[in-house]
Amino acid sequence: MKSIITISREFGSGGHSIGMRVAEKLGYHFYGRELVEKVAEISGFSTEFIKESGEYASAKSSLLFSLATAGQYETSGMSMHDRLYLIQTKVIEDIAGEGNCVIVGRCADYILRDYADCLHIFVYADMESRAKRIVARYGEQDRPAKKRLEDKDQKRRVYYKNYTGRSWGEPHNYDLCLDSGKLGIETCAELIVAACK
Amino acid sequence: MKSIITISREFGSGGHSIGMRVAEKLGYHFYGRELVEKVAEISGFSTEFIKESGEYASAKSSLLFSLATAGQYETSGMSMHDRLYLIQTKVIEDIAGEGNCVIVGRCADYILRDYADCLHIFVYADMESRAKRIVARYGEQDRPAKKRLEDKDQKRRVYYKNYTGRSWGEPHNYDLCLDSGKLGIETCAELIVAACK
Repeated sequence: MKSIITISREFGSGGHSIGMRVAEKLGYHFYGRELVEKVAEISGFSTEFIKESGEYASAKSSLLFSLATAGQYETSGMSMHDRLYLIQTKVIEDIAGEGNCVIVGRCADYILRDYADCLHIFVYADMESRAKRIVARYGEQDRPAKKRLEDKDQKRRVYYKNYTGRSWGEPHNYDLCLDSGKLGIETCAELIVAACK
Repeated sequence: MKSIITISREFGSGGHSIGMRVAEKLGYHFYGRELVEKVAEISGFSTEFIKESGEYASAKSSLLFSLATAGQYETSGMSMHDRLYLIQTKVIEDIAGEGNCVIVGRCADYILRDYADCLHIFVYADMESRAKRIVARYGEQDRPAKKRLEDKDQKRRVYYKNYTGRSWGEPHNYDLCLDSGKLGIETCAELIVAACK
């Protein structure tokens, strides 16, 4: 029985809702917003800044260079985004140490890649299902839903690449990838619970 | 309940064995070798040629051009590989028409992409698990197992791209992608059966 589940997801795929259902079914702690709040508490950054930073599409992060030159605990000279990423890493490792949890987003799949007791999930869906979902959830905007999705995908892809060196949504980074548009939210949750056992 | 399951898989991932287990559990007909034999019977090509053609890494296929210029049933002027692909397409559509089947490989996921009654699966695994599997199954060879896997992956990737225009192993082409190295053969089969229901 895996005690830690990470969920990476495309915007509008319902990965957050699936994570909540999985946590409910297993009696695990769910870290979505709460993870952001924990990072805010420790870092002193606002939850808004943390959420935006998670989709901050910058040029290549200088994090690895900073770590190599300044030592592991020296954070002066780092960008705020890089400092935030380090704090977030520590918070995710602490949460994982307690076990019985579902963690959504924030590169948790990468941060916990060497934890044997982990199941790594990727949730995706076709454009149409996702567009329908974000309009139902966040309403219409001036920009068409498809454009909003493409922008968000691109930002998450760049953020993930910056901090992990890996390709976002590449199956080999995950144990199980599910199309929520085709399978539905409830079936996805059931499959993840079954895979966990 | 989906009545058609297609399984695409990395060489050495155990996708073939998983497909057999799924067919067994659901009482479905399994098309692995039998699909090749059906194509051989209709085309007059040998099963060996058909198997090799499925991994034939050529320059861009002229199939679409031939179809556009010569009409759908005119196959003169086509390469043997393209003619074979067309016959294979027809055989897979016939099999799908009968339902209650599991089809492994041969671009069946693409050929049946518009069939609502289909579940499309991709099975993959880490290099180490796959290397172990092919050595156990096919024995050692002069070329190291890793090299054999990389060659086969590359050939399948090119063949798939040629005939479908899509990227092999890209999650959006499938409903469910499973890491058999991490989940194990039996759990993969169970999850596919559960997703099918």
